[in-house]
Amino acid sequence: MSEGTAPATGDAASVADEAARERLLHLRSSIDNLDAALVHLLAERFKCTQQVGELKARHSLPPADPAREAAQIARLRRLAEEARLDPAFAEKFLNFIIGEVVRHHRAIADRTVADSDTPDRPEEPQPATD
Amino acid sequence: MSEGTAPATGDAASVADEAARERLLHLRSSIDNLDAALVHLLAERFKCTQQVGELKARHSLPPADPAREAAQIARLRRLAEEARLDPAFAEKFLNFIIGEVVRHHRAIADRTVADSDTPDRPEEPQPATD
Repeated sequence: MSEGTAPATGDAASVADEAARERLLHLRSSIDNLDAALVHLLAERFKCTQQVGELKARHSLPPADPAREAAQIARLRRLAEEARLDPAFAEKFLNFIIGEVVRHHRAIADRTVADSDTPDRPEEPQPATD
Repeated sequence: MSEGTAPATGDAASVADEAARERLLHLRSSIDNLDAALVHLLAERFKCTQQVGELKARHSLPPADPAREAAQIARLRRLAEEARLDPAFAEKFLNFIIGEVVRHHRAIADRTVADSDTPDRPEEPQPATD
């Protein structure tokens, strides 16, 4: 106990470190909340792209749509700038997600080919938008 | 106009295609809404990790915390499973985000070293958690 004594410089430093550690825990709890929200939004996004993949496979719609993709990138970069997020990172993020969507769409198209009698389904789906 | 005539097979197919295209637009509008939400949550997450980086740099806290990182991965995988999202993808997503956080923390630590008189700041920050 340092009861009754003025805090030495070392004590002041350790109080500051303790406050920093508390602040760190506080920030981490916000990060954890945001991560939970991100995971749930991603799950919802993949539910949508799953349906897009099924639609495209069933109706022989082209898997990639360069105009849509360009519009998505431009919009996301603009939203990122407004939110003070690096637009280059937002674009990288979209490409990261689309990479996973392509993997899902490929699996859907493979199943559709396997389930279907019609031989004119796309056998080698191109990289998909959405 | 095919008024008064029963739809031929071709017409039925084109009606189905039109419905598919409408459904595609509907799904894409949901994807756009979710992407806007994702970008804003990511911006908020980086605001938190920015503060974490500054705290760590000021208080010479270790940049990486393997126990915290393991807990984050385990939690995110569990949340992903509950949301029917591929847990491996959730882990890949966290690593993708952390890669960007490391880049930010490195920039913060570089600025802190440049701004500080004390020579004992970390000069080569290790990969950072959060």
